[in-house]
Amino acid sequence: MTGNHAEEKAIRGLIDDWYAALGRRDAAGLAAAYADDVAVASLAPPLWGHGRQEYINGMAGWFSTFAGPLKGEPEKLSIVAGDSVAFVNGFSHIIGKKKDGTPMDLHTRLTLCFEKRGGRWLVVAEHASVPFDMQSFKPLIALKE
Amino acid sequence: MTGNHAEEKAIRGLIDDWYAALGRRDAAGLAAAYADDVAVASLAPPLWGHGRQEYINGMAGWFSTFAGPLKGEPEKLSIVAGDSVAFVNGFSHIIGKKKDGTPMDLHTRLTLCFEKRGGRWLVVAEHASVPFDMQSFKPLIALKE
Repeated sequence: MTGNHAEEKAIRGLIDDWYAALGRRDAAGLAAAYADDVAVASLAPPLWGHGRQEYINGMAGWFSTFAGPLKGEPEKLSIVAGDSVAFVNGFSHIIGKKKDGTPMDLHTRLTLCFEKRGGRWLVVAEHASVPFDMQSFKPLIALKE
Repeated sequence: MTGNHAEEKAIRGLIDDWYAALGRRDAAGLAAAYADDVAVASLAPPLWGHGRQEYINGMAGWFSTFAGPLKGEPEKLSIVAGDSVAFVNGFSHIIGKKKDGTPMDLHTRLTLCFEKRGGRWLVVAEHASVPFDMQSFKPLIALKE
């Protein structure tokens, strides 16, 4: 560990802001600390999406499939920060109800990559995923660890 | 970009070593620059695997399902390095033939997180994944981007 606690705390604050924006279904708010050229790997294709605006559009579309509020929290985050480069690994837990009534209780593994640009920490890559079962070839969205 | 070219070059060398070990189906070689406590998110469960030895055992088991050599290369890597913290994002392309004759031509998105410990860059997290199709609920292992 680098032990750069002030920077780790700043990054933890940005992550808490992200989950607060999720609760409000505020797609632009999610991207408040995202670089314009952020690369995003999510549960849906493509392998990597590119850019802050594409991310906002994708998340706004996803939010529109839910009835009512979403609730989420990060779990077991490991935050490693240097002076200008940092990353976070852990779990993301998101709960909601789809418009068709289907409940969603999703655990993903989450990696966030940060660069400090102009004195400000920005997310330059977000990688969220689930593994899949090698026999049934189904994605495993209900695993907890 | 941090523009720390010497460190970026060192990290690129470690990644090239990884793909060379893959070609030899050398599981311990893959983990030569992996921290003892590395966290690994791969295509198979669990969400996060923990530790270098678990990684070696898993990769050795995977290698044993192939007939003949594997070939792989990283594609479109973005390497960002500070003095003690670094990360890499891009694609991993791996080709092989399973023992039952099935050809495998796999593209994943890849994130690697590095810390410099004792003067040496070590992988502390590897996150490789594919997205899945939201209608068919099938993992998309053949996407190229």
